[in-house]
Amino acid sequence: MTLSMQPYKGTRDFFPHDMAIQKWMFNRMRAVVEGYAYQEYDGPMLEPFELYAAKTGEEIVNQQLYWLMDRGERKMAIRPEMTPTLARMVASKSHELPRPIRWYSFPNLWRYERPQRGRLREHWQLNVDVLGGDALLADAEVLTLAFDIIKGFGGESHVSIRVNNRRMMDHLITATLGLTAEVGLKVTKAIDARAKIGEEAYAKWLSDLGLNAEQRSRLEDFFKASFEETARAMPCQGVEELQSLFAFLKESGVGEQVVFDPTIMRGLDYYTGTVFEMYDNSPDNRRAMFGGGRYDNLVGLFGNQKLSGVGFGMGDVSMRNFLETHKLLPEFPPAAEIFVSLPKVEFRGQAEAVARELRGLGFRVMTPLTAEGFGVQLKQAVRHGSRFAILFGETELAQGNLILKDLAKNEQSIVSIGDIGKEIGVRLKGSGT
Amino acid sequence: MTLSMQPYKGTRDFFPHDMAIQKWMFNRMRAVVEGYAYQEYDGPMLEPFELYAAKTGEEIVNQQLYWLMDRGERKMAIRPEMTPTLARMVASKSHELPRPIRWYSFPNLWRYERPQRGRLREHWQLNVDVLGGDALLADAEVLTLAFDIIKGFGGESHVSIRVNNRRMMDHLITATLGLTAEVGLKVTKAIDARAKIGEEAYAKWLSDLGLNAEQRSRLEDFFKASFEETARAMPCQGVEELQSLFAFLKESGVGEQVVFDPTIMRGLDYYTGTVFEMYDNSPDNRRAMFGGGRYDNLVGLFGNQKLSGVGFGMGDVSMRNFLETHKLLPEFPPAAEIFVSLPKVEFRGQAEAVARELRGLGFRVMTPLTAEGFGVQLKQAVRHGSRFAILFGETELAQGNLILKDLAKNEQSIVSIGDIGKEIGVRLKGSGT
Repeated sequence: MTLSMQPYKGTRDFFPHDMAIQKWMFNRMRAVVEGYAYQEYDGPMLEPFELYAAKTGEEIVNQQLYWLMDRGERKMAIRPEMTPTLARMVASKSHELPRPIRWYSFPNLWRYERPQRGRLREHWQLNVDVLGGDALLADAEVLTLAFDIIKGFGGESHVSIRVNNRRMMDHLITATLGLTAEVGLKVTKAIDARAKIGEEAYAKWLSDLGLNAEQRSRLEDFFKASFEETARAMPCQGVEELQSLFAFLKESGVGEQVVFDPTIMRGLDYYTGTVFEMYDNSPDNRRAMFGGGRYDNLVGLFGNQKLSGVGFGMGDVSMRNFLETHKLLPEFPPAAEIFVSLPKVEFRGQAEAVARELRGLGFRVMTPLTAEGFGVQLKQAVRHGSRFAILFGETELAQGNLILKDLAKNEQSIVSIGDIGKEIGVRLKGSGT
Repeated sequence: MTLSMQPYKGTRDFFPHDMAIQKWMFNRMRAVVEGYAYQEYDGPMLEPFELYAAKTGEEIVNQQLYWLMDRGERKMAIRPEMTPTLARMVASKSHELPRPIRWYSFPNLWRYERPQRGRLREHWQLNVDVLGGDALLADAEVLTLAFDIIKGFGGESHVSIRVNNRRMMDHLITATLGLTAEVGLKVTKAIDARAKIGEEAYAKWLSDLGLNAEQRSRLEDFFKASFEETARAMPCQGVEELQSLFAFLKESGVGEQVVFDPTIMRGLDYYTGTVFEMYDNSPDNRRAMFGGGRYDNLVGLFGNQKLSGVGFGMGDVSMRNFLETHKLLPEFPPAAEIFVSLPKVEFRGQAEAVARELRGLGFRVMTPLTAEGFGVQLKQAVRHGSRFAILFGETELAQGNLILKDLAKNEQSIVSIGDIGKEIGVRLKGSGT
């Protein structure tokens, strides 16, 4: 039997160039998040199925979860999101962890979906969460931090942050429209899906849920109103929270990019207050790049504790799309800076000594695994993208010298063995590489 | 229902301190491996079940593999090892990739095992492989590199590298003992298990396989002989390979730590030449820390290509045990270097501006999420391990000043807002932190 060489549908192989991009993205994100004193954590890939059954949305659990029975008959799921693991971990050390808890992670997550642009079965995600502290200051901090990440990539002029509040939406649904909480939850699913399914299907969905013409028209008026109009027409806690949040965000220097958007709901059932998504403003990349929100009861799943939090998840697929769309990715250096040749296997001891010294100085050094002539090995150095090649033969070694070839400048010089590291250092500095 | 707060049996939660150790270990490994011009790659967590059925050992596939049927009825396995994914990826781009291919990865791997010290159901592993090039030069390179990693941790005096050769073992089994290849494979399993199961069970296993007294005694003689004696008594390709490899390793400066050990077999079926394991010499940590070997046909699973390789996997659990045993782990810095206080929420704009500037200078800065008095906030700064706290009130702000508290030295000074970054920089440099 011949096995397939392709990765499982909806997943990716990270060849070195893809991996370099991934690492670069994550390290840039890490630098920003750690600038806000967040600490990295991780948890296992498998969690008990029930961890998701409890609070993750129904669609994910019933249609998208990857699960298995282990050999001890435990029903385990591959994590589709990180927040339940976070909640579990925090609950288990709740009494020891100083507040507020500011944590981040880069989990890979799995959902059985039809693969499409920006949506895969396995993806990686930066997860940032803060638990404890005044809710709205925390909400403002994570939004500021999210925006700083985009700024760190040089993408700040291309995005907007759309913000809404679930508490305000609850007020709209129960107090203003007079619906039950149960119907209300279903209405929020329709609102969440609106942009994806189109106006007609959306209107039909509302009718099917039993909303009469007046209720539908009030809902429509709400969506047409500006934030100021809504604040006047429907004063409530959710509106006040949004007002404070907008003020805090202005203080943090991200007022301009923040937009009120009552259609933002987020699919997950556990959000209770602020919800937000970041969008690429460019018309050919109209999906939400990432989103998050406030959850007030999640840790309570594990007992009587109360600990509220706010967080977001930023996916690698959308982020890479964004950076490629706006040409914000850098060039990546080749694996080897220096290629130390091996004309004859008898010289290997000396070649190894040179390579060892250069590695000790922090250079990335490649040595050939076959002894061959200069011509063949120079080609190999070029093919691997090395900036320098070090060549030598009996004559040079007898005089304690090496030939240093600068492949970028096509220059060549004789350098004594003891000076080779210094010489390369000077040349690398000179060229700014 | 109350959910369990513990991670799934045999897996770990990485709280920030554990994660800091993990990242530090991996980054140190990464620096060494990249010094040899290896490139990082990764593949999906799930692979087709058949990928492992083909070449991974029977014990793993039948007893330890985590597998599931996806919602499209595909039988998928959670990767128990990385080499099959590597082989698949290399096969898929075989014609584009310049030789030799030097790749590394940090996958998490799953095996359903009884959890015990050093063996967990989920663990992470540095995988290093080189494909193409002269076999023995490649073998010498990865062994040298593996040793350099240990050296990078300061652990070189505590380890030995035990080396064997499968080809020599095949010669022993077929030519010297006159066994069939099939029985031979089973004998290698017994040899591999010998140290674990004890002498008695080992002897019984051999009898059960049909080895007569003479065959058992010849096998025993072989294990008692020194490498030089074996080389004289049983000249063959495997012995020659070992002789060359030992010479190459001496040239690379790792002669002393290398030991011939004919009991090293490695469980995996695909090894064909050099096999090796690294051991902690200290008596209370006698497991193999990691191991690897040469595989000559693995890529051939995907068609007619031939590409041989050598590689090793170095697990996070054993490495952390090793570093802890020998006290080779450093202290890790706290999440925040600087704590910018917030005595009143009205001052948040100014506090945010200070925090923003310090973050821009590369400092890790924490701001409180609740406005509170100096006393409470200083305690918070201390609890989070901050080196500095920045305090201010109306009076200080009116004069354009801040109070800088150096919590390590218990000193306090008035600094103008514009100089705060410089002042902290000087103090951090002065203390060598």
